[in-house]
Amino acid sequence: MKLLRYGPVGSEKPAVDAGTGSILDALPVTADFDTEFFASGGLGRLRDAVRNGSLKPVSIDGQRLGAPIKRAGKIVCIGLNYRNHAAESGMPIPTEPIIFMKAPNCMVGPNDDVAIPRNSAKTDWEVELAIVIGSEARYLTGPDEAMASIAGYAISNDVSEREFQMERGSQWDKGKSCETFNPFGPWIATTDEIPDPQALDMWLDVDGRREQTGHTSDMIFSVAHIVWYASQFMVLEPGDVINTGTPAGVGAGSKPPRFLTTGQEMCLHIQGLGEQRSRTVAAR
Amino acid sequence: MKLLRYGPVGSEKPAVDAGTGSILDALPVTADFDTEFFASGGLGRLRDAVRNGSLKPVSIDGQRLGAPIKRAGKIVCIGLNYRNHAAESGMPIPTEPIIFMKAPNCMVGPNDDVAIPRNSAKTDWEVELAIVIGSEARYLTGPDEAMASIAGYAISNDVSEREFQMERGSQWDKGKSCETFNPFGPWIATTDEIPDPQALDMWLDVDGRREQTGHTSDMIFSVAHIVWYASQFMVLEPGDVINTGTPAGVGAGSKPPRFLTTGQEMCLHIQGLGEQRSRTVAAR
Repeated sequence: MKLLRYGPVGSEKPAVDAGTGSILDALPVTADFDTEFFASGGLGRLRDAVRNGSLKPVSIDGQRLGAPIKRAGKIVCIGLNYRNHAAESGMPIPTEPIIFMKAPNCMVGPNDDVAIPRNSAKTDWEVELAIVIGSEARYLTGPDEAMASIAGYAISNDVSEREFQMERGSQWDKGKSCETFNPFGPWIATTDEIPDPQALDMWLDVDGRREQTGHTSDMIFSVAHIVWYASQFMVLEPGDVINTGTPAGVGAGSKPPRFLTTGQEMCLHIQGLGEQRSRTVAAR
Repeated sequence: MKLLRYGPVGSEKPAVDAGTGSILDALPVTADFDTEFFASGGLGRLRDAVRNGSLKPVSIDGQRLGAPIKRAGKIVCIGLNYRNHAAESGMPIPTEPIIFMKAPNCMVGPNDDVAIPRNSAKTDWEVELAIVIGSEARYLTGPDEAMASIAGYAISNDVSEREFQMERGSQWDKGKSCETFNPFGPWIATTDEIPDPQALDMWLDVDGRREQTGHTSDMIFSVAHIVWYASQFMVLEPGDVINTGTPAGVGAGSKPPRFLTTGQEMCLHIQGLGEQRSRTVAAR
């Protein structure tokens, strides 16, 4: 199933694409796709409702898409998880996952505008495979438990302000949490749709120019390893999101570096997870 | 007013101490102290209800205290904000605030147990003045706007695992977000109770031994500066919490370093904000 949310900011409604040829209204099953939905077995109820034909088609043509989850409890990010990105960043290959965080309220819809922060000169793009947690994960014993705790996958753009991140103190979160800095979606594909999360092509264009080309098989630490690892340090909850790192091709890694300005368009794709298309605007 | 929440984990009820000599049931005003409460002018409604005598006394004797907010939207932390703590940590004095984050779900009640994580050898304490945001703060223009966006103050114990924080990659969040790592409360004192947040004594004892003694006048960056500064990088929302840094006296700064083991008791105090008393236990 593909979970999505449509409608104006703050008034999104849940819908599901179950491959039946039309988008189905998920409101009879849940008011929204949120922590409570995942924690209470909502995916099973949704699947049952699709099977027994109780969901009606709904037209979302011309409607805005919201992030396909109402509000992530936390957004955990893995740094430097592709060798070629670590190299272009001039950073050593990590020997274990690097963990940082984005503020949960920087998540926006997949096609919403991305605001260049005030006083920013180095706003940059990062296409990433995102994991959505489906059940509580704490001190998992290994990769099987890790995979069982995943609800699905989506595209994240881990938008980053490199000066804020790298030149304003040692900690990265400051450059990762600006308003609109995590376009997410267009949908969450449940795990049955993505049998192998390490077999996905991904790319990112800026104004039609291919900037990033990657493949999730090139991750240093796999999806299973990341979820297992993170669960040793914090409790992952249903509805939490983990951004798994970006391949080479970010603006900061270009020679000379190139960064986003207003009026540009980013287009992101990951195999099986659709496309995002965001325009850059000045922060209001 | 002092806002507090009492009752079993997950079933806490809101109450208020308005200096009338008894604790008052806040349920007629709000189901809980959460983002919605602060965002919708709940503090004003609560103050009105106290004034017109519509709230009834409630006995909380013998009841557990929860964190005085249901769930922080995010927990922003300021690193190395006291000169003597930067020195004991062997770190340079920051020239601007260092920002990192704790996972919002690591917040617990003020007297709840603190779990020493599995595989931890370096769990440490940090008494901190916490700011609770009362109204949206984005691109604030200065200290007056910053102070106006604050709902109140509380005690935070920014519990930290130093090996996870400092020796497992460059980013600190990994050692800051473990389960139970943010005892919070016992209450949120609204700003009228704390006219000057830079004039507060604070201390922390472990097993009755005074480990930290500090005063908020020694902050490198003031409360007003921190809120203004953070608002340039992210949108602060009602119910967000900012931990403003810890003075000298953490275990890692001792010579030789001393860390927490199971069966110890931490007692924390900040002037006007009450006391916390937590026991350390092994992570389940």
